[in-house]
Amino acid sequence: MTSTPHASASNAARSTIAGSDDAQMVRQQLRDADRLHHVHSFTDHSALQQNGGAFIAERGEGSMLVGEGNIRLLDAMAGLGCVNVGYGRKEMAQAAADAMQDLAYYHSFQATTNPHAAALAERIAKAAPGALNHVFFANSGSEANESILKLVRAYWRAKGQPNRQHIIARDYAYHGSTLFTTSLNGLPPMHEAFGLPLSGVSHIEAPYWYRQGGDLDPEAYGKKAARSLKDKITELGADQVAAFIAEPIQVTSGVIMPPESYWPEIVAICKQEGILLIADEVVTGFGRTGHWFAQNHYGIEADFMTLAKGLSSGYMPIAAAVISDKVAEMTLQQGGAFQHGFTTSGHPVACAVALKNLDIIVQEGLVERAAKMGAVLHSKLNTAIGDHPLVGEVRGMGLLAGIELVRDRKSRSHYPLELGLCSHVANAALMQGVIVRATGNSLVICPPFIITEAEIDVVVAALVAALEQIYGQLQAG
Amino acid sequence: MTSTPHASASNAARSTIAGSDDAQMVRQQLRDADRLHHVHSFTDHSALQQNGGAFIAERGEGSMLVGEGNIRLLDAMAGLGCVNVGYGRKEMAQAAADAMQDLAYYHSFQATTNPHAAALAERIAKAAPGALNHVFFANSGSEANESILKLVRAYWRAKGQPNRQHIIARDYAYHGSTLFTTSLNGLPPMHEAFGLPLSGVSHIEAPYWYRQGGDLDPEAYGKKAARSLKDKITELGADQVAAFIAEPIQVTSGVIMPPESYWPEIVAICKQEGILLIADEVVTGFGRTGHWFAQNHYGIEADFMTLAKGLSSGYMPIAAAVISDKVAEMTLQQGGAFQHGFTTSGHPVACAVALKNLDIIVQEGLVERAAKMGAVLHSKLNTAIGDHPLVGEVRGMGLLAGIELVRDRKSRSHYPLELGLCSHVANAALMQGVIVRATGNSLVICPPFIITEAEIDVVVAALVAALEQIYGQLQAG
Repeated sequence: MTSTPHASASNAARSTIAGSDDAQMVRQQLRDADRLHHVHSFTDHSALQQNGGAFIAERGEGSMLVGEGNIRLLDAMAGLGCVNVGYGRKEMAQAAADAMQDLAYYHSFQATTNPHAAALAERIAKAAPGALNHVFFANSGSEANESILKLVRAYWRAKGQPNRQHIIARDYAYHGSTLFTTSLNGLPPMHEAFGLPLSGVSHIEAPYWYRQGGDLDPEAYGKKAARSLKDKITELGADQVAAFIAEPIQVTSGVIMPPESYWPEIVAICKQEGILLIADEVVTGFGRTGHWFAQNHYGIEADFMTLAKGLSSGYMPIAAAVISDKVAEMTLQQGGAFQHGFTTSGHPVACAVALKNLDIIVQEGLVERAAKMGAVLHSKLNTAIGDHPLVGEVRGMGLLAGIELVRDRKSRSHYPLELGLCSHVANAALMQGVIVRATGNSLVICPPFIITEAEIDVVVAALVAALEQIYGQLQAG
Repeated sequence: MTSTPHASASNAARSTIAGSDDAQMVRQQLRDADRLHHVHSFTDHSALQQNGGAFIAERGEGSMLVGEGNIRLLDAMAGLGCVNVGYGRKEMAQAAADAMQDLAYYHSFQATTNPHAAALAERIAKAAPGALNHVFFANSGSEANESILKLVRAYWRAKGQPNRQHIIARDYAYHGSTLFTTSLNGLPPMHEAFGLPLSGVSHIEAPYWYRQGGDLDPEAYGKKAARSLKDKITELGADQVAAFIAEPIQVTSGVIMPPESYWPEIVAICKQEGILLIADEVVTGFGRTGHWFAQNHYGIEADFMTLAKGLSSGYMPIAAAVISDKVAEMTLQQGGAFQHGFTTSGHPVACAVALKNLDIIVQEGLVERAAKMGAVLHSKLNTAIGDHPLVGEVRGMGLLAGIELVRDRKSRSHYPLELGLCSHVANAALMQGVIVRATGNSLVICPPFIITEAEIDVVVAALVAALEQIYGQLQAG
């Protein structure tokens, strides 16, 4: 339909937030606008139509998300694992407004910078593990990974080995939603509708001891899983392989915790075979595990690190591709202009908001808090549901927990995925006022770092009630 | 280097902006931080090191960019063709702060929305040409194009023609900086360092009459250039071709204006061959040409439209993939969950800022103003430099102008690109206090829509002076 864009829905949006007398009517208008015109991520749009439209999130306060009709939900997912400092931070809003008033936009092309981008680049480099000293800004984890993949190709071309283009990823991986990063994902439903993966990508076994460990103890299995990288390199030919990309902990598929033996073996194989290592810390970066970066815990010093969500606590879209000295020397310092960039790379407002977010994390000791409250969360989860007949394993680190649900604890067998067991449990928890995420056979919990012990009790109690309810329904047939 | 992120550079950033007594020292610290750690887009980092670091942009006011040492530059590029409402809009900063305070983040996954995303989706759909009624939000033009490319693949799979995967793009095109969108670009330097393009992409002739028209008049050449699409489809086999992607006007390579005969022929070929048409309006969208969308002028109703820059005037990273009813019906309403999305798709703050931006454009009549001031710009450019011996052609529409420089007006021959003629002229204009962009053999001008006639006079005078200076140097040998 063609007409001059009008302001009615925009006014409606404002009225809703202000809470007008006609709030219900305005919400219905917004829901209709949304249903007719808004394409949602990872949503069944046919079901959305049948269900009368979307749920409208309206406010956030601390760990609480407030939706239409003043529905208050304890957000034990921190949005999508990003709102680490919690919702409603006045100082973040002020930093955004100040930066926007000063310099609403400028690019980082042609040797131009702005104070916030320069300061943030230095701050990330100083915090990053190893020789990860060079920061390219993008808008999302997908774009940061795409930027890294281009640098990987540039690196091998500069080294005179242009045939090294193959990327090895893992089953259960999540690295983004562009065509190439979707191809890296180890999640078949994300490939099927789009005819992916693209060529030049292979997947190896994930270090998923609980499901794949068989008779091996975790440490023996960790080494075995790592050696699948070596096997794949041998199969492809080392002279064809450019890089291995991996999340230190695979969060999207239910927080797959690698045995401690896994990463040292992977790092050794990458060195031995001379391939580049990309650590995707989009979820784990900036304190989620109780460490600044998960690499700190596992002793990894990758050639590239991907950062996004926690960099701004989701308050603004911003991401970073962090690049080692070795790669920067071969690609950026040689070979003329870097022919890559996004319009909003190094956006002054996004960088200012990220700086304020890091200020808050440091000043309030939120990484240490994530470690401490993470221990509380895991202890309470284990006590409350560790022996529940539906719970196979509770795992994680810091404020990151995965709960794998099973049909039978001994055999570790699952209910069929079509049954949607985890979604039923997550929905039951939602009815108790707590947001957790269902993913495959697991539930994921990754709350804001500011979560209190009392709020953790609410989360755990909701999970207990939800598990009991669904277990009761399963028992009743 | 590993340490807890510290706040010194952040404090430095704030001091700089506030203008402390030690401003010069603080700027030097920032420049050093930037030089050591910030990877710039489209920049020669070796030259940046040698030149002592980057230029620091610090403030923006209306059409003016203010850099270190109170250097005031009239930004006739509107950043990168995005700051359409001008810098320093208080109401935009207020909208950002209000939205961030209310709901700093929430996702659009699993049938969730927020008031700003719902309202913005409706508003874009109502403004968009033809049946482009479905809006998926991304963070950049690259991501919006990637989202469209995934939907193209999903569409043909749903239609039972999964072999239709080939994408046809054009020489001189710019569609993004991910691996696949870089592959679509028709700019060889963007391919070379990275071993691109990926497979599955072909390029056809751009409708570049001035350079490629030969003896044909523009209208005859326009039809001929369009028929190269038909030829390419025949060569590849129509059953292999998924879509044609094109900018209505190719801006990045010097504002290539298609003859009026071009687009009707392209639209007819796409219909006849049954391939999908993607109109990339990242630069032209939201008024740049004096129309809401360039498709309005050319009578195009594409299957997809890509939007970014002007959607928020660059104040926040946000983009949209706009999808036609036909495609939405085959892909979103059928086939279960849409397995695609970005963490910050439909970001409430970005959507609120975009809504405020559209409010401003409507309330101040900025599209009409772009048409009117565009006519003034083109008239003054033609009068002042149309006959200059270095100027081959002045072209464009609305507040978008390309100036192609030549060695010889009659033969239309160029100086060798290595001479960097356009960069020299752009640098000379910069010394006159005006930012224009050098790209290949052309200069590009695309100022904020609020530019005044007096400011246009400044831009034109700077160009006259810059051309005279460089021409004098060339004549002096």
